[in-house]
Amino acid sequence: MSNTIKIGVLGCGTVGSQVVRLLGERKDDLQARAGAKLEITGISVGRVDAPRDPWVPREKLTSDSEKVVYEADLVIELIGGIEPARTLITRALSAGKSVVTGNKALLAAHGTALFDLAREKGADLYYEAAVAGAVPVVYGLRESLAGDRVESVMGIVNGTTNYILDQMSTQNWSYEQALSSAQQLGYAEADPTADVEGLDAAAKCALLAQLAFHTRVSLADVSVKGISHLTIDDITDAASQGYALKLLAIAQRVTDEDGQEAITCRVEPTLIDRSNPLSNVDGAFNAIVIDAEAAGRLMFYGQGAGGVQTASAVLGDVVAAAFHLAHGGAAPQESAYASLPYLPTAETYGAARIRLQIRDELGVLEQVAGVFAKNGVSLRQVSQSQSKDGKADLALSTQKALRSKLEQTVSELTGLPGVLGIRQMLQIH
Amino acid sequence: MSNTIKIGVLGCGTVGSQVVRLLGERKDDLQARAGAKLEITGISVGRVDAPRDPWVPREKLTSDSEKVVYEADLVIELIGGIEPARTLITRALSAGKSVVTGNKALLAAHGTALFDLAREKGADLYYEAAVAGAVPVVYGLRESLAGDRVESVMGIVNGTTNYILDQMSTQNWSYEQALSSAQQLGYAEADPTADVEGLDAAAKCALLAQLAFHTRVSLADVSVKGISHLTIDDITDAASQGYALKLLAIAQRVTDEDGQEAITCRVEPTLIDRSNPLSNVDGAFNAIVIDAEAAGRLMFYGQGAGGVQTASAVLGDVVAAAFHLAHGGAAPQESAYASLPYLPTAETYGAARIRLQIRDELGVLEQVAGVFAKNGVSLRQVSQSQSKDGKADLALSTQKALRSKLEQTVSELTGLPGVLGIRQMLQIH
Repeated sequence: MSNTIKIGVLGCGTVGSQVVRLLGERKDDLQARAGAKLEITGISVGRVDAPRDPWVPREKLTSDSEKVVYEADLVIELIGGIEPARTLITRALSAGKSVVTGNKALLAAHGTALFDLAREKGADLYYEAAVAGAVPVVYGLRESLAGDRVESVMGIVNGTTNYILDQMSTQNWSYEQALSSAQQLGYAEADPTADVEGLDAAAKCALLAQLAFHTRVSLADVSVKGISHLTIDDITDAASQGYALKLLAIAQRVTDEDGQEAITCRVEPTLIDRSNPLSNVDGAFNAIVIDAEAAGRLMFYGQGAGGVQTASAVLGDVVAAAFHLAHGGAAPQESAYASLPYLPTAETYGAARIRLQIRDELGVLEQVAGVFAKNGVSLRQVSQSQSKDGKADLALSTQKALRSKLEQTVSELTGLPGVLGIRQMLQIH
Repeated sequence: MSNTIKIGVLGCGTVGSQVVRLLGERKDDLQARAGAKLEITGISVGRVDAPRDPWVPREKLTSDSEKVVYEADLVIELIGGIEPARTLITRALSAGKSVVTGNKALLAAHGTALFDLAREKGADLYYEAAVAGAVPVVYGLRESLAGDRVESVMGIVNGTTNYILDQMSTQNWSYEQALSSAQQLGYAEADPTADVEGLDAAAKCALLAQLAFHTRVSLADVSVKGISHLTIDDITDAASQGYALKLLAIAQRVTDEDGQEAITCRVEPTLIDRSNPLSNVDGAFNAIVIDAEAAGRLMFYGQGAGGVQTASAVLGDVVAAAFHLAHGGAAPQESAYASLPYLPTAETYGAARIRLQIRDELGVLEQVAGVFAKNGVSLRQVSQSQSKDGKADLALSTQKALRSKLEQTVSELTGLPGVLGIRQMLQIH
């Protein structure tokens, strides 16, 4: 193995530019830790003549990404999206080169094939930056907990939605106001769909579940609800019950009807108790709580986004991959040896809080309660607001019930003559 | 490389017994992750005929620890203490065998020689369990943050003292009552010195600093104060100021008088703001906050003690070491390449809270203030209690000052005619 590791960087946006800066400024430290010289041999970009940060070496810029891969021992992929990232990473791994990527969308869609390829070629495929920015949860699951049995992973893994919910809660802003503020601050993109509809969190949830349960999990296996349908009333009602409202990614080991072990994954706005450590995670921070059989509860907390923070995760992976290139060996690659079946969310159990608008008439509460009873859903708490113009708001918290029964209950409530509308149904964790 | 990894276990106490149990019960999972068969070939114990947990295979027990090392590919050392652990680990590493240990005292005293030996032989020396039980902070510092520059590490790393301070704070117990409760619950040993005098935390602090700053740090470099001199008044006073009182291990990158980079390490009871995430870490939990240049603030949180929790950390290391034995490669070993100088705590800056008993006479406060002024220590807050029998309590919070000046101030206060005694001086972080 050559004593100099040639590094090719694909993409030079917010994260890529910081990676290039730190590879220059912290070169001595990084080389000492990797036990090898590190040299950037090429940086592929869409437009070579676009404005760049002053530290980016212009002579290394090229639009020929295949050449960058060809010349490198270690490829850092920060383009994002499926193509051309997939083709370039496949080419690198096929040639036995190491790859470090932050591409959650690609890994959630095609991770299994890429991990298999890496294992076959004895190459490293690292992706700490893909899951929660600087928070080292990939290492935590893949290496620290390699000797344990994970029961559940539950986390706040999208900073944009966490910022929006935070602002709604602390500033009393509407969803639209909070989103607009997030866009002005650069926390949300002009098209915020991937964040606010939970798709970014769902890709991360799939990666976390795959690591935690050694089972192939694709994006389609994750049931997803976003935050765009939430109102300030949801936040106010949550607070009145001692809950915080957070967009959580949850992956759990469960038991199905036949007593078989299975896994289930979901991303949805969830009410959590104020004593839950996730309830205090605010703004741009991410946090992941892992419950494991032997270790008990672990929490990892840190910044989930930002160019320089994410660059820290990329460079940790670069040092590990460079160390392997220089000294031999490779990281254990994700394997789906456990192959647990997937249980749809509807077949799992959960408690919910449901808010309705009803006609304030005798007998309506009895009708509503009857629908819950018929579906076998027990109630834990019911409260009714002051009547106004003959209408009132009704809020109910259920005990744990089969989620399909909760959905069925809500659907039947809609048909009751005394029910004017369903305002919201939210899961309680 | 043989397809079966022979594992020798040295010591079968609380942690060792759980390691043996999980190696049996979770064998299929662990083998799938390590990519090799795992077999316990011997378990060395002090007395073969002592009572054991039912899952411990009696036919594997022996008092011949050298034989256990000789027959193994991978040695798990859970004896603790310096000898015979040091000799046995040295023998294993010299023969190129991998070692997993939870022995913080040994690593704090002789880590450098052992890490050098492991690197020379290309063998693994893992020790996640030595620092904070199940909390994966060794992985975090060694691998996840390998691409970053750590500025400080600050943590609650001793569950016994955290439990005692917790009970003093929530139950209003004296130190002696809380210690006795900890002993009854098995959280504290009959001789609690190593915990309550901060020695256990100091060994962990040295290991953390070594990992964070790539510099040799010995136990003697860590300035240590324990908790046995604390009283309920200290807790009450802290609470009145919005502080929690925690025994913290702190390792920091600092700049000395000449502008040179240096490190400093200390373990001492410290007042921290209620907004600091460490203030909410209670009971048996450990937590470590790391501030790094690029990643920003990270926190790792989990159970710091307990047989099964610590066994999780041991087994994570066993899987990694077994993977390397089966597939080639070794983990990067700690290297002291940075060799930063060590700055004694007295030459660093800190703020303090000082409580005195004084004569309630005209002029005493002026005398006291004069001593602070003379030493160049600015005050941020002063409060005096109601006078009783001509005596009063005086509590002062300082601005940041050179710690040697703070010590000098307290020493001079003792000599004042109006000062009846120094009740306490505590650092504020």
